[in-house]
Amino acid sequence: MPSALILIAQGTEEMEYTITYDILVRGGVKVQSALVGSSQTSPTDPHGAKYVECTRGVKIVPDLRLPDLEGGKALDYDAIIVPGGGPGANTIANNSDVQQLINAMYGRGKIVACICAGSLAALKAKIGTDNDITSHPSVKDQLVKDYTYREDRVVIADNLITSRGPGTAFAFALAIVEALQGKEKRDEIEGPMILPDKL
Amino acid sequence: MPSALILIAQGTEEMEYTITYDILVRGGVKVQSALVGSSQTSPTDPHGAKYVECTRGVKIVPDLRLPDLEGGKALDYDAIIVPGGGPGANTIANNSDVQQLINAMYGRGKIVACICAGSLAALKAKIGTDNDITSHPSVKDQLVKDYTYREDRVVIADNLITSRGPGTAFAFALAIVEALQGKEKRDEIEGPMILPDKL
Repeated sequence: MPSALILIAQGTEEMEYTITYDILVRGGVKVQSALVGSSQTSPTDPHGAKYVECTRGVKIVPDLRLPDLEGGKALDYDAIIVPGGGPGANTIANNSDVQQLINAMYGRGKIVACICAGSLAALKAKIGTDNDITSHPSVKDQLVKDYTYREDRVVIADNLITSRGPGTAFAFALAIVEALQGKEKRDEIEGPMILPDKL
Repeated sequence: MPSALILIAQGTEEMEYTITYDILVRGGVKVQSALVGSSQTSPTDPHGAKYVECTRGVKIVPDLRLPDLEGGKALDYDAIIVPGGGPGANTIANNSDVQQLINAMYGRGKIVACICAGSLAALKAKIGTDNDITSHPSVKDQLVKDYTYREDRVVIADNLITSRGPGTAFAFALAIVEALQGKEKRDEIEGPMILPDKL
C-alpha cells in the first residue's frame, strides 16, 4: 500500500488539505499529515484541542508533528504533499527541514505534489527548476524566473505534480492517485463522488 | 452578516464539511460548527485533541457542541447545514434535538441545506415532504416515498437546498452563498478558487 505525507500549518487552505487527504485514502493510499511550526489550543479549554486553524477557520488536528519523523522516517513515504493557503504555504516553504526533505524525496524519485501557493515549496527546495510548474495565479510572479510556468489545471513534470487552487483540488488529488495507484484505481473511485464532467 | 450552523459528528464526510464551511466564509457568512454526539481524544495524548474523525481520517475540531446552543440560540442562525458521510449523517439525522431544530428553522423560513446522506436529516425532521429533493444515490431508496426525487446536482425547493456528494459540494456551497448573500457575492468569490467551468 503506497503512503503519502501531507504537510499542514496554521493558515493552510482547508479545502486543499481535506480534498487531497480524503481522495488519497479513497484511492487506497495510507495518508498521514504532519504539522510544520506550532499548533494552538482553545483559549476556553486549555486541556482541549491542539489544532491548526486553517485560512477560513476550519480547525484540523494533524496526525503527526514534523519532528516525529526525524531520523529519515519521512523518506519512507512514497509522496509528499504541500497544500496552499498563503500563511500555511509560507510557513511550510520557508522551513529548512521541509526544504531538505522535499529535496531528498524528489531526488529519490518520490512524488512531490504542491497546490496553490504550495508550489513555493518546490521553489524553496530548489527542485524541478527550468521544468514545467503551475500555482495559484497570486504567486505566479515568484515562479516565472526559475520554471516554465503553465496555466493548466494540473501540471505533471517528472515526479513534480503541481496545481492551482481549491477548485482544481479534485483533479490534483486524482492525479496523485493515478501516479501512485494507476488509472484503473482512479477510475474506480471517481464514480461515487459525483464529480463535475470536466475537472 | 448572515450566519450558518454546520452540524458535524464522528464519520462526517470531511470534504463536504470543509468545502461548505470554507466557501460560506469566503461568501461573507459567519460560520460555526456544532458537534452532534461525542468526540474523541487521542489515545497517545489524553490531554490532547478533542476532535471528530471523519470518514477518511481527517480530524476536525468542532467550534461548539450542540448543547451549547440550548435555549433557542440555534434559531438565530440564518441557515443550518447537514453534511454527508454515512455514519455522521445517521448520527445527525437520528438525533431528536436536531430533528426539532431543523423542523423549527425550516418553519421559520431559514435555509436548511443537506448534502449526500445528509438529506436523511430532512426526512427525519419531516420537512419539505412531497417537494423536490436529491441526495447521494446510496440513500435514494429511503427518500423516494416522501419526496419528488431529482438527480440534479443541486435542488432548491423553497428553503430546502439539497445536493449529491463531495463532487457537488462546490455547487452546493455556492448555492447557499447565493441564497444568503445574492448572486453578485457568489460571482465575486468564484474567480480566485479556479473552479471547473461547469460545476
